[in-house]
Amino acid sequence: MKAVCIISGGMDSALSSYIAKEVDGYEVIAVHFNYGQKTEQKELESFHKIADELQSLKRFVLDLGFIAQIGGSALTDEDKVVPTGGLEEGIPVTYVPFRNGIFLSIAAAIAEREGAEAIYIGVVEEDSSGYPDCSEGFIKMMEAAIDRGTKPQTKIQLKTPLLHLKKEQIVQKASELGVPLEWTWSCYQSQDLACGVCDSCRLRLKGFALAGLEDPIPYQ
Amino acid sequence: MKAVCIISGGMDSALSSYIAKEVDGYEVIAVHFNYGQKTEQKELESFHKIADELQSLKRFVLDLGFIAQIGGSALTDEDKVVPTGGLEEGIPVTYVPFRNGIFLSIAAAIAEREGAEAIYIGVVEEDSSGYPDCSEGFIKMMEAAIDRGTKPQTKIQLKTPLLHLKKEQIVQKASELGVPLEWTWSCYQSQDLACGVCDSCRLRLKGFALAGLEDPIPYQ
Repeated sequence: MKAVCIISGGMDSALSSYIAKEVDGYEVIAVHFNYGQKTEQKELESFHKIADELQSLKRFVLDLGFIAQIGGSALTDEDKVVPTGGLEEGIPVTYVPFRNGIFLSIAAAIAEREGAEAIYIGVVEEDSSGYPDCSEGFIKMMEAAIDRGTKPQTKIQLKTPLLHLKKEQIVQKASELGVPLEWTWSCYQSQDLACGVCDSCRLRLKGFALAGLEDPIPYQ
Repeated sequence: MKAVCIISGGMDSALSSYIAKEVDGYEVIAVHFNYGQKTEQKELESFHKIADELQSLKRFVLDLGFIAQIGGSALTDEDKVVPTGGLEEGIPVTYVPFRNGIFLSIAAAIAEREGAEAIYIGVVEEDSSGYPDCSEGFIKMMEAAIDRGTKPQTKIQLKTPLLHLKKEQIVQKASELGVPLEWTWSCYQSQDLACGVCDSCRLRLKGFALAGLEDPIPYQ
């Protein structure tokens, strides 16, 4: 039983892939996307460490440079600044147009090619940044589209074990399952010391605080 | 009014983008994907000539080398031979896993970023090679997924004007609309002279024959 796990290097996708292996019993095909994001190098390093730990069956590091070419997000565009003032209403400027649609389509191609039955993605709906491609409605529709657009014998389930978790539950569960949190990276803008003030750092720190645990990564 | 047109360099996508501009009145954002297919160079050349003719507003040539990295198709894999014995039952070995899902996801990102209202793709359902990602059911589900996975104010229609056409109708209509058929390329395996015997050449030649027109491209 094989599952394609999309692993960004962050805490959520690390936990999601640990659930695939440790709870649901899948062999892991680890997939990572480089797309010209500002912390590309650090995330790739985290990915390899997590994939090592998971003893991944196979590893795909795919270059999606075209995402930066399309542009439109503070995660990729030089002239856009990652906001650090706290999460605001609406869709943040860090939103990368239809990113998870692109990620899931590619993961579906890999799953079909490799004979995997499931794709794990660490999206979080409620307690997150409010990206439209992280919603349950989207995931369900994408699953239906993948089912219809692949071979009749191909059956791929989209698994989102973190969808309705709060950040503190993610920290707690990751800690219970032995996810190497010290090797995960969440910061949107820095690669040596996490900034602590971008939306992603704020959500992470809030999760650790509410879980009553200490975040092992270094902050500025 | 802007539309993203996916233009491979073949006859179908050329006609589809001509319909976008000449019939439906959209300004064209021309998008081409290189994915390590055996005729990549020739298709790119055709794309630029078609986009020139359409006076495209903007042009995106995106590198999807990861598709060849994933593998699984005779269009990309060195060790797989493009069949030349005529179309057989079932899904051909030229099928690239979930290719149109990947193409449409990326086109959706471009459309959202550029404020385009429609995506044109030259898929043909009945009179084609039988790829699962060319069916109307798939296109409808993908449209729903794109709608749910992009910003609430983003509305993108997927337009498939060739979906139910036969190849001879495509040739006829292309000829009527002034599509430069001499600049389109369909062959799966050769770049100088079309082979005439792969599935794509066979479908093209059948279309011209039934339309009573002569194919202007050179064959072996």
